[in-house]
Amino acid sequence: MYGPSIDRLITALRVMPGIGAKSAQRIAMALLERHRDGAQELAASLVDAVDKVGNCSSCRTLCEGEQCTICADIQRSDKQLCIVETPADLYAIEQAGGYRGRYFVLMGHLSPIDGIGPDELGLPLLEAKLANDGVEELILATNLTVEGETTAHYISSRAHAAGVAVSRIAHGVPIGGELEYIDSNTLSMAMQSRKAI
Amino acid sequence: MYGPSIDRLITALRVMPGIGAKSAQRIAMALLERHRDGAQELAASLVDAVDKVGNCSSCRTLCEGEQCTICADIQRSDKQLCIVETPADLYAIEQAGGYRGRYFVLMGHLSPIDGIGPDELGLPLLEAKLANDGVEELILATNLTVEGETTAHYISSRAHAAGVAVSRIAHGVPIGGELEYIDSNTLSMAMQSRKAI
Repeated sequence: MYGPSIDRLITALRVMPGIGAKSAQRIAMALLERHRDGAQELAASLVDAVDKVGNCSSCRTLCEGEQCTICADIQRSDKQLCIVETPADLYAIEQAGGYRGRYFVLMGHLSPIDGIGPDELGLPLLEAKLANDGVEELILATNLTVEGETTAHYISSRAHAAGVAVSRIAHGVPIGGELEYIDSNTLSMAMQSRKAI
Repeated sequence: MYGPSIDRLITALRVMPGIGAKSAQRIAMALLERHRDGAQELAASLVDAVDKVGNCSSCRTLCEGEQCTICADIQRSDKQLCIVETPADLYAIEQAGGYRGRYFVLMGHLSPIDGIGPDELGLPLLEAKLANDGVEELILATNLTVEGETTAHYISSRAHAAGVAVSRIAHGVPIGGELEYIDSNTLSMAMQSRKAI
C-alpha cells in the first residue's frame, strides 16, 4: 500500500513479539520520518548481534564468545544449579539478586507437538553436568505453565536418578499483591503451600 | 549487562516509538533465541527502506521515486487539496475512502521551540501550489492539538491571502461513541458545532 520498500519494512517489523500490523506501520513511519540514523544503527546492531551472539558452551544462555560471564566467574558456587527456560528468566533472577550458584538455560520447554524433546533442551549436557560438576542441589525455576511443569517433572526424575537433591521455586501470592485481585488458582496454591510460622 | 552486542541491540531497538527498556529487552531476546532469520530480514529491509524511500516532490509524503502514486494519478481532482501532518494521516484518510482530491503532507506541525517553522513544513511549496495548480478548496486535516490548530490557523491565513476557500474537517462525537464516555472538551465542541437538521 505504501510502496514496496515500506511494505517490506512493515512486514519485517512484525517479526518482533507484541508488534502487530498497526504498530509496525506506526514504527515504520516514525523511523522513516524522523529517525533514519536510528534505523540504520538498528539495522547494523541487528546484523552485529546475529553474527556475534551464540550460546554459552556450558549453560546454553545467549552470550558472545565461548562462555558467559556467569559460567566464567570462579567465585560462584558449583553446588547449586538453577534451571530456567530462557536467558530473560536468568537475568530476572540475577536482577533479583541473592543467588550465587550457576544456571542452566533450556532455551524453551518440552513440547513434543513442536518437536522439542530432551535433546533440543540440551538435557544430555545437563545430565553430564549433574554427573561430573559436583552439583548438590538442582533448583527448578521453569514457568508455572503446563509445559514448564512437565519439563520440571521430567528433569527432576532425571536428577533424582543421578542422586542430586531437587527443589522448585515457591509459588504463591506476590509481595504487595492484594488477595482480592489474585486469581483463584494462585490463591488456592498459596493456601495449599502454606508454611508453619 | 547482557554483553556488548546484545546491549547495543537493546539500545538501538528503543529508537522505535512505544518500545521502552523492558520491551526492547524482550524483543532482543526473542529475535536472538527464535527469529534470527527474521532479524536479518528486518536489518536488510531497514537499510533498503532508508536507502530508497524519500519524499514526493509534489506533496512531500514518503514515497519511492520522484512522485507518489496519488500525485501521479491523473484521475484525481486538482481542485481539492487536503493538508495533513504525516503520511500516516494521509493513509488513514485514504483508507476511510471517499476523498478523490490531492494531499499535501507537512511532515510535522509548527513548533518554533523545536525550530520547526513554515520552511520546514514546506509552506513555500504549498503557496506555489495554491498560486499555480488551480486549487479551489483547501481542506485542513491537521490534528486537533494546540500545535495542529496553530498550524491550521497559519495555513488558512495564507490560503485566504491567495484567494482559496478553506475548510476544516469536522470534530465531534465519533460514530458509535457513547456520550457517557466522551471527554467533556469533545462534547462541548460537538454541542457548539451542532447542525440544523
